[in-house]
Amino acid sequence: MDYIKTIREKKPLIHHLTNWVTIYDCAQATRAIGALPVMAHADEEVAEMANLASALVLNIGTLTILLVDSMIKAAKTANQKKIPVILDAVGCGATSLRTSSTLRILEECKIDILKGNAGEIGVIAGATAEVRGVESMGVKGDLDELAKTLAKKYDNVVVVTGAVDIITDGDRIEKCTAGHELMSQVVGTGCMSASALGCFASVAEDYVDSSLQAMNYYGRAGERAAQTTKRPMEFKVQLLDNLADT
Amino acid sequence: MDYIKTIREKKPLIHHLTNWVTIYDCAQATRAIGALPVMAHADEEVAEMANLASALVLNIGTLTILLVDSMIKAAKTANQKKIPVILDAVGCGATSLRTSSTLRILEECKIDILKGNAGEIGVIAGATAEVRGVESMGVKGDLDELAKTLAKKYDNVVVVTGAVDIITDGDRIEKCTAGHELMSQVVGTGCMSASALGCFASVAEDYVDSSLQAMNYYGRAGERAAQTTKRPMEFKVQLLDNLADT
Amino acid sequence: MDYIKTIREKKPLIHHLTNWVTIYDCAQATRAIGALPVMAHADEEVAEMANLASALVLNIGTLTILLVDSMIKAAKTANQKKIPVILDAVGCGATSLRTSSTLRILEECKIDILKGNAGEIGVIAGATAEVRGVESMGVKGDLDELAKTLAKKYDNVVVVTGAVDIITDGDRIEKCTAGHELMSQVVGTGCMSASALGCFASVAEDYVDSSLQAMNYYGRAGERAAQTTKRPMEFKVQLLDNLADT
Repeated sequence: MDYIKTIREKKPLIHHLTNWVTIYDCAQATRAIGALPVMAHADEEVAEMANLASALVLNIGTLTILLVDSMIKAAKTANQKKIPVILDAVGCGATSLRTSSTLRILEECKIDILKGNAGEIGVIAGATAEVRGVESMGVKGDLDELAKTLAKKYDNVVVVTGAVDIITDGDRIEKCTAGHELMSQVVGTGCMSASALGCFASVAEDYVDSSLQAMNYYGRAGERAAQTTKRPMEFKVQLLDNLADT
Repeated sequence: MDYIKTIREKKPLIHHLTNWVTIYDCAQATRAIGALPVMAHADEEVAEMANLASALVLNIGTLTILLVDSMIKAAKTANQKKIPVILDAVGCGATSLRTSSTLRILEECKIDILKGNAGEIGVIAGATAEVRGVESMGVKGDLDELAKTLAKKYDNVVVVTGAVDIITDGDRIEKCTAGHELMSQVVGTGCMSASALGCFASVAEDYVDSSLQAMNYYGRAGERAAQTTKRPMEFKVQLLDNLADT
Repeated sequence: MDYIKTIREKKPLIHHLTNWVTIYDCAQATRAIGALPVMAHADEEVAEMANLASALVLNIGTLTILLVDSMIKAAKTANQKKIPVILDAVGCGATSLRTSSTLRILEECKIDILKGNAGEIGVIAGATAEVRGVESMGVKGDLDELAKTLAKKYDNVVVVTGAVDIITDGDRIEKCTAGHELMSQVVGTGCMSASALGCFASVAEDYVDSSLQAMNYYGRAGERAAQTTKRPMEFKVQLLDNLADT
């Protein structure tokens, strides 16, 4: 499937409950890819908004318990409507609130695509892993196997981001090497890739393929940006604009 | 009146209660135009802050019931102080919370300038209109007449944004064609125009004229930005910097 | 000490409880300097996150009472752990909530570095001072003496930002003239300098020296940015990228 063409034709609504740090970047990344972003977190409207949407993106970067409650409410609606739910487990493992909230979301609703860095995914999988703030400090064990086990456990697609991204549903496993080291020097590049996963999944049935294509599209936009500048914020402007390329 | 000159001389304080997506952009647009932005939403301080301000800008882009309560409190103070209150009805019609909150604000306090896209204004006017997320999907009926009827009902100025902006107080009707298609490809351009409406109204008595001049000034900044780049985020940087032009 | 070299080797975690306007800028400034930013404000996790951190940066730009409660909780943990706590008293004096919250924070926990503009610091010191929104409208009295008295009272370092920054612990007093007038035309430059203070303090024992070096490093990044552009948002991109210079 030509995902970008389909997204730009259908203009799917991508409902986000996300953090306050990179909320703009998630919205603009979604807009640049060609979908319609909407950010809505009030308990009173999340179910109704999710019901209008074609994908739901959850990000616990600046979570509160109330926000997690709203995420679960939105996700339950999304589950009923059978639209994909993406969870970006930002900082999972750094505090017990982040770990317990991630597990609570995974247990109380169906997450179709679970995304995290090596440390975050390691923590969810119960491995020895370290997360400092929102940064992975590494994980013990075979990351491919941890990701596959996790995907089987939750019957979903797990995306582990890093120099080489891992995408697996527990059986199939795909790798994505697209991207550039500069991405790690700019706040928000991880969050924006979750929005990309949401945009691509919103028009897909196979979330392994849509996730692989999303990470490839996003990574290649970063590679092209890095050809024009090595300065982080200049790079970010170019990354976002490359996502909008026709 | 030379609005820009007056704003830069008086440096009016523009109090915002706005959304978490484009809050920075609203602040910087206000600063670039030459006014002083302040963002304050706590129930305990909104009345006091509004009392210091020369205009109040409300935006329901990421509303909660608590935030709407604070908006009404601030607006009542603004009404007593007779400073202009601008409401940007972002996403009105997408969910019942957005629609009912918009109507509640309009009923419980005086909104001097009500801004929305065609779908949002259509929903407030009770017409058949559709809003997907924060995007207008169109409205049935004569938009000029809907805007005029609404302005008469609430005794205010209604600004309908689009390729051609409509500005009316129910009797007079003005059109603004300034602007560029790129504005629709960047998240935040609508929100920033509400800040421009607030800056201009803060030094004006005639809100039809101030709104027309604000939309013209803002639109021309966009036109000049589009002469330098067709890339959305590069465009946004230039748009903001053009607002600061002397 | 070569602060930048040390920060980039140690990658200290800088925990922020900050405002929703410039939260991204604080995170990216921290990242550019070479430290790891994390933004976390939920009552349930602030103590745990502060316990992982090497500095804590508090900013009351969009405060609520709940957020101030979380700030104090985080700061008490930071005090026990003996990591530096920086308070940016944004808008102190504009409303009674901002003034009383600043004083409450200063009384209930140890603030190691207290930062504000002339108006904000004047208000905290009990002088005749005016703050409109978040802008200093001036202060009566000798600012050096006010800052020294305040630093003695709270046994900390006071940083007064302005064309010439004042840094004092009550005995020693240092001045920093680095910086550029364009910084005052961009929303967020004050907030980002508090993040710089936090990054430098996280690897220091002498907070007068670390604050002086932080303001110098930050100001020089602004000076270099102003050599490439006079346009505010272009300037901001260059300022952030200059912070990342090697």
